[in-house]
Amino acid sequence: MNTGEDELVAKIAKTLSQGSGRRSAYRRGLALGVGDDAALLIPKPGYETIPTCDWFLEGSHFQRHRHPADSIGWKCLARAVSDIAAMGGSPTYFLLSLGLPKTHTGRWLDQFLGGLRRASRQFDCQLVGGDTTRNAKILINVTVLGEVRQGRAVLRSGARAGDLLFVSGRLGEAELGLQRVRRGQTGRRDPYVNKHLYPEPRLALGRWLAEEGIATAMMDLSDGLSTDLARLCAASGVGAKVEADKIPKPNLSVAKTRSQRDLTDLALNGGDDYELLFTVMARGARRVPSNFKGVPLSQIGELTRERRLALISPGGRKERLVARGWDPF
Amino acid sequence: MNTGEDELVAKIAKTLSQGSGRRSAYRRGLALGVGDDAALLIPKPGYETIPTCDWFLEGSHFQRHRHPADSIGWKCLARAVSDIAAMGGSPTYFLLSLGLPKTHTGRWLDQFLGGLRRASRQFDCQLVGGDTTRNAKILINVTVLGEVRQGRAVLRSGARAGDLLFVSGRLGEAELGLQRVRRGQTGRRDPYVNKHLYPEPRLALGRWLAEEGIATAMMDLSDGLSTDLARLCAASGVGAKVEADKIPKPNLSVAKTRSQRDLTDLALNGGDDYELLFTVMARGARRVPSNFKGVPLSQIGELTRERRLALISPGGRKERLVARGWDPF
Repeated sequence: MNTGEDELVAKIAKTLSQGSGRRSAYRRGLALGVGDDAALLIPKPGYETIPTCDWFLEGSHFQRHRHPADSIGWKCLARAVSDIAAMGGSPTYFLLSLGLPKTHTGRWLDQFLGGLRRASRQFDCQLVGGDTTRNAKILINVTVLGEVRQGRAVLRSGARAGDLLFVSGRLGEAELGLQRVRRGQTGRRDPYVNKHLYPEPRLALGRWLAEEGIATAMMDLSDGLSTDLARLCAASGVGAKVEADKIPKPNLSVAKTRSQRDLTDLALNGGDDYELLFTVMARGARRVPSNFKGVPLSQIGELTRERRLALISPGGRKERLVARGWDPF
Repeated sequence: MNTGEDELVAKIAKTLSQGSGRRSAYRRGLALGVGDDAALLIPKPGYETIPTCDWFLEGSHFQRHRHPADSIGWKCLARAVSDIAAMGGSPTYFLLSLGLPKTHTGRWLDQFLGGLRRASRQFDCQLVGGDTTRNAKILINVTVLGEVRQGRAVLRSGARAGDLLFVSGRLGEAELGLQRVRRGQTGRRDPYVNKHLYPEPRLALGRWLAEEGIATAMMDLSDGLSTDLARLCAASGVGAKVEADKIPKPNLSVAKTRSQRDLTDLALNGGDDYELLFTVMARGARRVPSNFKGVPLSQIGELTRERRLALISPGGRKERLVARGWDPF
């Protein structure tokens, strides 16, 4: 009695359930999984639910012939999970909406599901539904549900003038990786290519900053520091002063042939880093270590009463910091 | 500090929040709405969460030049909400993922949001997030979260041999409407066109059947009776016997020039009706009224131990009922 779509759904559900068997559905609050009109989830008492969704589209976010199917599977979940990290929460469940050409329901789909399954295990986030359809271009939309202890989520709007501004990791690395992938380099040994293809949302860091009450505001960097910082400042009703030489950039010795100015532009405007941008009260700054589980944490500036974004050059010159990150429109 | 995408998100959030002000965010369990990395929802104690999502794509599910923008806004939410009705639940929140051509961010978007806002009010389902991107074709994906009292949801898998099979409404009407829309008739006065463009998910009926414990299994009819009944039977491990002349069909006097056989095919295989298909224990059948709040309820057959789908013709001849509904693959 099966149809083509039903077989595809069964394949997806089967592949994604492999290897997550050690976690009991009961413990995770899953009353009913894939296969009915919808799943049934039992929320954990004392926790809030965090819903988020993300497009991941051929032509806009990846190229069919450049990006390995496995990395598309990993990244479509990783980038949605990053929004949960940015609230200080933990992902729990996801829904997968797939639009595929008929030619991509075999080997390509297997590799895609392989990457997605690895991400699902790594982030402890279980498939509970979705929708599939046929489409000439590959269309992906992922909804992730997360949870956070009631009242503990860190918002974009909590920063105050005088708070210090921090970022995790090194910015611009994923953009460097994208430039290499566009030139046909997709070897995972290259750290920049790897960061572009297989980003790691900063879940442990986000949870720690939220649980310890260290961060006053937080968001993830997906569209570039210059664009995302403007959003955090607008939400908090403050401005910011960023010191160019404090921004953690790709390591020059590896990213050769780049001037310092080029690297600053890359770090300010490159997208897809999925690092965390967060603010800390000045007196709490000593609680922020220089790295957290191997991820460097850098103070790059501070928030100001004056609602402007300023960039301080290494020579001390102050210029306006303009949002030049990713905008699809 | 705004960018194009930020302005678009602000417009969507503003339009969708109009008119839902009478419901307090506190009462609805919404701790944080649109505008941060994600929303924060406080689940209602004693209730399960129902997550579901649906594609609604130009070219597959609607035609840009045939379907009014307002109906696309209404229907993208209505069809996702129908999955919540099919579980016996109530919708609470939704996420809207939009991919739009630059040419469609003005007047078209306004009309689309108008239809979506009416649906959002009608179904008492509030926007709490989403994602927007630019795309040559119009892409829509809607995630709906619903709630149902713990243990009360009605699944596809609960039917047993001997249970009676019911449907709401009249089947095939939306397919008739689609045929008219394809010929350029989009007047809402035509009941079939109206049903195709502005379907009404059977929320009150689904809730009543679940709360009263009347339905043993339930699903919504989106891909056509012949295809969806096969799914319900597979989930329940039973077969079914359907009587052709008991299937509620479009009214012949309105849908002229159709033979009885044509109408049966339409009712069996036409998609997009969003009626409910449900099963009831034989001894509970007298509790099912002939109509519920103006929607007719019809017993069309029964479930059988033998795992086959059979159609009984008006003359009593038995033939195999083949799944010929909508399948994108």
